Amino acid sequence: MDDPVLLTGASGRVGQAILGGLADEYEWRLLDRDPPTGDQPGEFVVADVTDEEAIRDAMDGVGAVIHLAGDPRPEAPWDSVLTNNIDGAKTVFEAAADADVDRVVFASSNHAVGAYETDERTPGLYRSHDEYRLDGTELPRPSNLYGVSKATGEVLGRYYHDHRDLRVCCVRIGNLTESHPPIDYERGQAMWLSYRDCAHLFDRALRADYEYEIVYGISDNDRKYYSIDRAREVLGYDPQDNSAAWDGDERASEGS
Amino acid sequence: MDDPVLLTGASGRVGQAILGGLADEYEWRLLDRDPPTGDQPGEFVVADVTDEEAIRDAMDGVGAVIHLAGDPRPEAPWDSVLTNNIDGAKTVFEAAADADVDRVVFASSNHAVGAYETDERTPGLYRSHDEYRLDGTELPRPSNLYGVSKATGEVLGRYYHDHRDLRVCCVRIGNLTESHPPIDYERGQAMWLSYRDCAHLFDRALRADYEYEIVYGISDNDRKYYSIDRAREVLGYDPQDNSAAWDGDERASEGS
Repeated sequence: MDDPVLLTGASGRVGQAILGGLADEYEWRLLDRDPPTGDQPGEFVVADVTDEEAIRDAMDGVGAVIHLAGDPRPEAPWDSVLTNNIDGAKTVFEAAADADVDRVVFASSNHAVGAYETDERTPGLYRSHDEYRLDGTELPRPSNLYGVSKATGEVLGRYYHDHRDLRVCCVRIGNLTESHPPIDYERGQAMWLSYRDCAHLFDRALRADYEYEIVYGISDNDRKYYSIDRAREVLGYDPQDNSAAWDGDERASEGS
Repeated sequence: MDDPVLLTGASGRVGQAILGGLADEYEWRLLDRDPPTGDQPGEFVVADVTDEEAIRDAMDGVGAVIHLAGDPRPEAPWDSVLTNNIDGAKTVFEAAADADVDRVVFASSNHAVGAYETDERTPGLYRSHDEYRLDGTELPRPSNLYGVSKATGEVLGRYYHDHRDLRVCCVRIGNLTESHPPIDYERGQAMWLSYRDCAHLFDRALRADYEYEIVYGISDNDRKYYSIDRAREVLGYDPQDNSAAWDGDERASEGS
């Protein structure tokens, strides 16, 4: 892709994982509401995602958008996710469609479907013998109002895809941590996404051929209840990490 | 049900269809942002659905809610559906959960899934020989931003069901018209909902035993691409009308 890639929420954790792997692979236009600290691998725009005029300006000449900006707190109050995540996503999708951008890769979240983790299913769901899988075709069941806002972003993406010919890939990001997976937290191990797999997944979402997709963003963990089949098939995602590599006691703790 | 039923958007078309059939069946608390014209079959509260305090007051002692209020225009602008439909639905669901209301019946819309009507599928989709069906398990594909707001209301309902034990039934209402179905409009005939079937469907949604449901609200039309199987099975919906009764020329026009 020769045209610049606009990365909103560039200074957040997901943005840093992406730039850590792909700084030299694209011409980046980075956007965040706070000014950057230190050197940046591209032009940097300081703007809030709710500032429609600034977002429209930032789309100029852009080939693709990775939209990460928003309130990232699972416990964020409704007023904040309504404004920053729902209205913010609408602003980005519409500005992208109006600017004839090819695609938007949207950071959705495991919290869009967290309520599938019922008392009956957990903790078995988090263990490698369990074969229950979510695959992205299921209806949302949010964990929280943040998850409601992410599910709404997916629906907005569907609308802008169907009516404005925007390619849209929604990535339900798992538990992204640098270096090792969460310790003593089975759920986090089941939905772990390493920094390098994160960068690779977004790279594929920028390059692959698709129309509208919802995929899960996790590493190839032995423990998993999100299918990564769709990401493999459509995006060519080929994850290198597995939380089991840090988890020598799992089989023992399951008594198998 | 002995406790009052709160009906928001009582003066709108769906509200009038419901009250036309069920005025004497429940103790109604009617709510609309505009004062009523004429006699009403219950207490009438004039309040806007975005007025959180008024909505909380209106929930006092209520057993069930039918939530219809919102901007009903398919072409409504984003700012209006964001405020009236999305934020409004959140206000109603949360106030209902806080007031220990048993259930909320939410007026969703065919516009939550209108983009399944692709150029490839139409107009065959609207004809009685076509066996393609949406059944409520499919992901939303909104026709418009109004449809996005209705899909978001469904997700909010799922959240308040899963976390606050509220029973929620989302009714994707078709094309509601009084007396006869739309003339010379195959799509409208396929999703026609008569006034009496509408009242009956909401009656069943107030009485049946369920947890969280998404059902289609149409009459038993020969032309249909929404399944009413789920409404029959879970709610005991037994529609009496069929747009084909007004449509003697359909078979001839299909050449079969």
